[in-house]
Amino acid sequence: MTNVAQRSSEDVSRANRQIREAYDAFKAKGLKLNLTRGKPSSAQLDLSSALLSLPGSADYTAEGATDCRNYGGLQGLAEARRLFSGIMGTAPEQIVVANNSSLALMHDTVVYALLKGTCDSASPWSKQGESSFLCPVPGYDRHFSICEEHGIRMIPVPLNGDGPDMSAVARLVSQDASIRGMWCVPKYSNPTGAVYSDAVVERLASMKTAAPDFRLYWDNAYTVHHLTDEHIEIANIVELCARHGHPNRPFVFASTSKVTLPGAGLAMFASSKENVKWLLARLTQRTIGPDKINQLRHVRFLKDEAGIAGLMDRHKALIVPKFQKVLEVFGAKLAHLPHVTWTKPKGGYFISLDVPQGFARRVVALAKEAGIELTPAGATHPYGKDPEDRTIRIAPTFPELPEVAQAAEGVALCVLLATAE
Amino acid sequence: MTNVAQRSSEDVSRANRQIREAYDAFKAKGLKLNLTRGKPSSAQLDLSSALLSLPGSADYTAEGATDCRNYGGLQGLAEARRLFSGIMGTAPEQIVVANNSSLALMHDTVVYALLKGTCDSASPWSKQGESSFLCPVPGYDRHFSICEEHGIRMIPVPLNGDGPDMSAVARLVSQDASIRGMWCVPKYSNPTGAVYSDAVVERLASMKTAAPDFRLYWDNAYTVHHLTDEHIEIANIVELCARHGHPNRPFVFASTSKVTLPGAGLAMFASSKENVKWLLARLTQRTIGPDKINQLRHVRFLKDEAGIAGLMDRHKALIVPKFQKVLEVFGAKLAHLPHVTWTKPKGGYFISLDVPQGFARRVVALAKEAGIELTPAGATHPYGKDPEDRTIRIAPTFPELPEVAQAAEGVALCVLLATAE
Repeated sequence: MTNVAQRSSEDVSRANRQIREAYDAFKAKGLKLNLTRGKPSSAQLDLSSALLSLPGSADYTAEGATDCRNYGGLQGLAEARRLFSGIMGTAPEQIVVANNSSLALMHDTVVYALLKGTCDSASPWSKQGESSFLCPVPGYDRHFSICEEHGIRMIPVPLNGDGPDMSAVARLVSQDASIRGMWCVPKYSNPTGAVYSDAVVERLASMKTAAPDFRLYWDNAYTVHHLTDEHIEIANIVELCARHGHPNRPFVFASTSKVTLPGAGLAMFASSKENVKWLLARLTQRTIGPDKINQLRHVRFLKDEAGIAGLMDRHKALIVPKFQKVLEVFGAKLAHLPHVTWTKPKGGYFISLDVPQGFARRVVALAKEAGIELTPAGATHPYGKDPEDRTIRIAPTFPELPEVAQAAEGVALCVLLATAE
Repeated sequence: MTNVAQRSSEDVSRANRQIREAYDAFKAKGLKLNLTRGKPSSAQLDLSSALLSLPGSADYTAEGATDCRNYGGLQGLAEARRLFSGIMGTAPEQIVVANNSSLALMHDTVVYALLKGTCDSASPWSKQGESSFLCPVPGYDRHFSICEEHGIRMIPVPLNGDGPDMSAVARLVSQDASIRGMWCVPKYSNPTGAVYSDAVVERLASMKTAAPDFRLYWDNAYTVHHLTDEHIEIANIVELCARHGHPNRPFVFASTSKVTLPGAGLAMFASSKENVKWLLARLTQRTIGPDKINQLRHVRFLKDEAGIAGLMDRHKALIVPKFQKVLEVFGAKLAHLPHVTWTKPKGGYFISLDVPQGFARRVVALAKEAGIELTPAGATHPYGKDPEDRTIRIAPTFPELPEVAQAAEGVALCVLLATAE
């Protein structure tokens, strides 16, 4: 005869043994799965096949009799700037269309601010002592790498479902003049899918900052990347900053990397006229002009905002089932676990999985052992260090659906095993 | 009865009147001619029309099963690096193929050295006090602009027909540790067409420098841009620097801007393995990869070195008559003038016209009045200041031949008038 405690303990052992066996069986399959990066799948890339033979050998003349084959046109083609005007939320004259990628534009605007200062800086940032950026966490590892490369101190602030914790942000920027920038992915954020509320955007636009040359690095990477029919629109940061007397505060970035072809796409910058003038004065030292043929190619292919929306609907049709599969597997396998949560994004490229404190690295290591590459635990935080070791970024777009299903099952097993161990 | 002096003076007056009348007649035509920039003509761009529909909608896979449409491939496609290996004079693994343009690569390597230091720097250049570059003059205005933008002191050194004055160069770099770089256009230089001799290249590779992290910014922009059948080859700077114990000294740059399409071309960097590693470590903060589709497009179009050479022959056929016309007009109109000389380049994009000291600005002003845009006098020198006010850069490639002839006639008239005044 056994008592209740014994039986319960035996049950747990049996359950754990089953998890271990399932994990070992999974591992024994010798799969090679990869959920690391937000890459479009081959089928998504096929949606833009037409680009590969555009603009066509007789089509090289843009507005104003511009021969796109020759030098010049630093700000980008007029029709390309018009094409993205709605998406960027500014007039074409406040837009710069550049080569791939928006990451390069973000990097370079940091570099120019360090070496030259912004148009509101008394001197280059690099001559003003320490520079700091606010980093809503979890966030995008490549933003953090730019700061790390250039010695900019990163100050994490919590990212909530409606944007960064604004009481923390407002307090920090008002007190610390070394805070010269802030990374923001305001819509369908990487990795949580957070969408900045109108109230948060308004407060970012209006808040007092100790640094007179404070800049919002507004990486609107997922602005047309909806996963539902809701098509969320956020408040217009350029307009709001201007209205609140800080017209030069936002540097707005976007790209076609996940609209057409990563690498072979266009990057866009939008801001006040003064900031655009400042950026062009830097760019003219670096280049005589961007790849205007690629701009023409994109104009011919995308045509207008409706063309972009149509293409994004076709992307959505390909990737929504993958997101659904991950959510379905996590729901079935992990819903009962305490302190395990995940986001259900309405757009973007990621699901953010939170495991119990101290378990993220272990889960990623177990996954690796079982043939599933995950983004390193910690990558979602400055310096690659997640102080709670909780957050794992899941990128389900690149593998085919059966692989996504397998990988999600595998990840769930790893979470079960790690927390059982 | 008139004496010789009187008659001579009258002759001069009559001749000067005739020049003035010819100039006024030229001006009255109200022409709009432009010899300012080294731009390919429309007919030259037509040579690469095929690029506008390449690679074609089903062709996106490069070596190693690389999907050129997706992210990645920081160093550039293997086949693109192989394609340019001969031109760059290094193995493919010592080459980086990037987006347009080489100017951007030069700018960025200066920026990275300032902010991070080179792989041989004890600290970033910007933390080591003043940085200086040697600038052979006359030289390329956009090189000088990079230095001016970033507060790098420019020290002019004379450029002779066989390269920079090496006794001046060797003395300066051995004494002044602030000299961290030197601009070199070693072949068919901009604007004189100078070709660095083997002896000069060897000395640049072997000379002692006070700065341990001294870099030759080796802008081999015109390496395949021959204007004669001679097809001059210069000594291999990467090999020579390695042989003399300074493997990291050269940063070699080239591009397809004047091979295929300016703006829509590729830029190349070549150097030691250590420098390539250093550059890639910087680039990875800035971008996930270059436009690989454009690299594939170029590989498909150019095919191999013979393909490049054939294309350059077709360029030559289009531009040689323009160079010949300018030289013919200058020979006919200016040969008798003292202190007026011009280069007869064997390659490249420019003719450098030297007028008597103190006259260059006047000639450019007269030309402008007569409807001919010339590169501002002084542009060939650091800070836009030609201390002797002598050198005028003539760029004959862009206008059609009849316009080149008219413009050359006009420039000759301006020289005659300026020196007669």
